[in-house]
Amino acid sequence: MPTHYPENSVGLIVPSTAHFADPLQLSCGEVLPTFDLIYETYGTLNPDASNAILICHALSGDHHAAGFHSAEDKKPGWWDTMIGPGKPLDTKQFFIVSCNNIGGCAGSTGPTAINPGSGKCYGPDFPIVTVQDWVSSQSRLADLLGIHRWLAIVGGSLGGMQALQWTIDFPDRVAHALIIAAAPKLTAQNIAFNEVARQAIRTDPDYHDGWYSEHNTLPARGLRLARMLGHITYLSDDIMAQKFGRDLRQGKVNFDFSVDFQVESYLRYQADSFVGRFDANTYLLMTKSLDYFDPAANHNGNLTLAVAAATASFLVISFSSDWRFAAGRSREIVKALHDNHLNVSYANITSSNGHDAFLMQNPQYFGIVQAYMDQAASRA
Amino acid sequence: MPTHYPENSVGLIVPSTAHFADPLQLSCGEVLPTFDLIYETYGTLNPDASNAILICHALSGDHHAAGFHSAEDKKPGWWDTMIGPGKPLDTKQFFIVSCNNIGGCAGSTGPTAINPGSGKCYGPDFPIVTVQDWVSSQSRLADLLGIHRWLAIVGGSLGGMQALQWTIDFPDRVAHALIIAAAPKLTAQNIAFNEVARQAIRTDPDYHDGWYSEHNTLPARGLRLARMLGHITYLSDDIMAQKFGRDLRQGKVNFDFSVDFQVESYLRYQADSFVGRFDANTYLLMTKSLDYFDPAANHNGNLTLAVAAATASFLVISFSSDWRFAAGRSREIVKALHDNHLNVSYANITSSNGHDAFLMQNPQYFGIVQAYMDQAASRA
Repeated sequence: MPTHYPENSVGLIVPSTAHFADPLQLSCGEVLPTFDLIYETYGTLNPDASNAILICHALSGDHHAAGFHSAEDKKPGWWDTMIGPGKPLDTKQFFIVSCNNIGGCAGSTGPTAINPGSGKCYGPDFPIVTVQDWVSSQSRLADLLGIHRWLAIVGGSLGGMQALQWTIDFPDRVAHALIIAAAPKLTAQNIAFNEVARQAIRTDPDYHDGWYSEHNTLPARGLRLARMLGHITYLSDDIMAQKFGRDLRQGKVNFDFSVDFQVESYLRYQADSFVGRFDANTYLLMTKSLDYFDPAANHNGNLTLAVAAATASFLVISFSSDWRFAAGRSREIVKALHDNHLNVSYANITSSNGHDAFLMQNPQYFGIVQAYMDQAASRA
Repeated sequence: MPTHYPENSVGLIVPSTAHFADPLQLSCGEVLPTFDLIYETYGTLNPDASNAILICHALSGDHHAAGFHSAEDKKPGWWDTMIGPGKPLDTKQFFIVSCNNIGGCAGSTGPTAINPGSGKCYGPDFPIVTVQDWVSSQSRLADLLGIHRWLAIVGGSLGGMQALQWTIDFPDRVAHALIIAAAPKLTAQNIAFNEVARQAIRTDPDYHDGWYSEHNTLPARGLRLARMLGHITYLSDDIMAQKFGRDLRQGKVNFDFSVDFQVESYLRYQADSFVGRFDANTYLLMTKSLDYFDPAANHNGNLTLAVAAATASFLVISFSSDWRFAAGRSREIVKALHDNHLNVSYANITSSNGHDAFLMQNPQYFGIVQAYMDQAASRA
C-alpha cells in the first residue's frame, strides 16, 4: 500500500486505551473508582525499557501528539514537528508515550465519560483534578507499559508543570525532565484570565450548571470567549502586530460591529473551530488545575524545598516574548533546581511567537532539545 | 450651612446640560440632528476666557470628574485628586470644564437618549462615533461657554487621544495639550481585547441585538465579562501580584468553582458594580472609538504628517508598568511632535499601578502636571 505520509512522520497511528480497575485517590479527597487513559506510542521500547519518553499535554492538548489517524487527516498530531524519525524526539531512538489526561475530553476518563456511580455522564460531577493527580494516573500507565523509569518526561506549559511534578513525586522514575514554557505557579494575572474564561462558560445560559449535554446543547458562547481570550495570551503583542497589525478586512472600517480588523476575524475563527472539538467542563477543570499548581505551597512558598526530592537532570526552556509564562518564571524553576545542586540546562529562546512558541518549529529551540536528548540517550 | 466637603474639594457640583439644535455631521456619514452634552465646571472663567481647561474622559468615564453631587456621596468625581483648590489642576486658578461624550450614558446624547426620529431610545441605532466626532461636539460646547481657545486640554487614555485630536483639528483653539497614558492608535492586541469584550456583550442572549431595554433586561453577563477583562488590562502584572498574589479567600482551595483566590473575588466585585451603572451599547461604541482612532491613517501611517497642523505645546506622560498603552506608545506621539518642532515635555512615571496609574495620586506625576500648568498659566 503506498503511503501518503511524509518520510519523517510516524505515519498512521492507532490510539490505545488502558483501563485501570484500581481506584485512584485524588487530591480533592474524592476517589475515581476506575479510570481509562487513551494514549498513543511512537517508536519501539527497547528490551531494558530505558528509552521511554513521556509527553505531557497542555490545557487544550490531547494524546494525539504525532502522526495521523487516517490518510485523510489534513493535520498531524499537535507536536508532530517535534516527534518523529530524525526529529528532536527521535522515534528511531526513543519509545514515546503520549496520553490524554484524566478530566480530558479526548477519550480518557473525564466529564464526557460515563460515571459508574450514576450510569450517566460525569459532566460537572467530575472532580477537579490536579497536576499531582495526573502524574499519579500517568504512573499507572508507566507500570502497565513496563516502564519503571522514564528516560525523559517532556512537556510545554501545563505539560511542563507535570514534568516538574513527576520529578518531585517519583524521583527514581525520571532520568530527565524537559520543562518548556512553564512556571512554578500561576500569577494573580494568570489566574484572573482563567477566571474570566470560567465566568464566560459558567454564565452562558446554555451551560445549565454543567449539564448541557442533558439539554442537548453546549455553552458555545462561553467557550468561544474563553478560547479568544486564551489566544490573546498565547500570542505576543509583537507577533500580533506582525501577523495582523491594524489590517482591515475590507480595506475600510464599517462603522458597525461586523469584522473591521483582521485580528477580529482570526479570533472569531479560532473560537468557532474550538467549540466543535473541546468540552466546556474539561476546559473549566484544566484552568483550575493550572490555578492550583503550586508545589511550593506546602513548603511555605519555598520552591527550593519543594523540589528537594528531585534527582533528575533538567532542561528548562523559555521564550523571550512569552508573557503568559515569562522567562523569569522559568528562571525561578532553574534557581530552585540549582539550589539543590541538580544538573540543569537552561535556554531562553529568542522568538516573537509568545507562549505559542513552544509548539512551533524553531532551529535554536529544536537544536537544543535534540542535542540534549542525544546526550541523555548516550548516557542512559 | 456647615459643609462636609474637604477643604481642597470643589464641593457640591450641579451638572448642566447644553442643548445643541444644529445638526452634527459624524465621521460615519450619519448626522445627529440635535444633541445634548451634560457637563460640569469647576472654578471661575476669567474675563478674557484665557484660563479654561477641558477634561476629556476615558472609556468608562463621564462628566463628573470632581466634587460631589450630594452631601451623601461616598465618593467624589473620578479625577478629584487632580482637580480642586491647590491641586494640580487648580480651581483657584483655572476654569475647568468636563463633559460626558456623545454616545455616553451619563446624560449626553447616546444610546439611552430619545431618538427624535423614532420617539424611542436610540439603543443600537446610535451611530458609532469617533474621537473626531467628540472633538467636534466639544468645540460646540466651547463656543457656548465663550471659550475660543483652551488654555489646556487634558485627558488620560482615550481622553488623551481626544486631547491630541483637538490639536490637529483646531490648532488655534488649544494652547496646551496634556496627553496621559495614551497611544496614537491601538495595537492588534488592544483591538483583540476590545473584540472579546464586544463578543461577550453581543452574544449575551439578553443583548437582544441592542434592544435590551425594550425587553426590560440588560446583557449583564456580557458586560460583567467585558469589565473583568478590562480590569486585567488596567492593572499591571506586578500590582496584581502585590495586591492579591495567590492569596486565598478562605485559606484553602475549595476544589469547586466558587471563589478560591482573592483576585477572583476582586474581579467579580468590580464586574457587578459596573453592570448597575454603565450601558452596554455605550460600552460597545466606546471600544469602537478606541479601535478606530488612528490620526495617521489618512497620512499613509505617518504620524508626523498627521500632527503637522498642531501648534500647541504638549505634556506627554506615560507610566512604566502600563502595558495597555506602554511607554513606547507615548514616545511615538512625542517623536511625531518633535519632528514638527513643537514644544514637548515628556515624562515616564515610575509606577507599579499599570494603566490605572493615570487615575491615581502619585507625587512625581502630580508634581509634573502642577509645574507644567503653573508655567502654562504664567505664560498665558
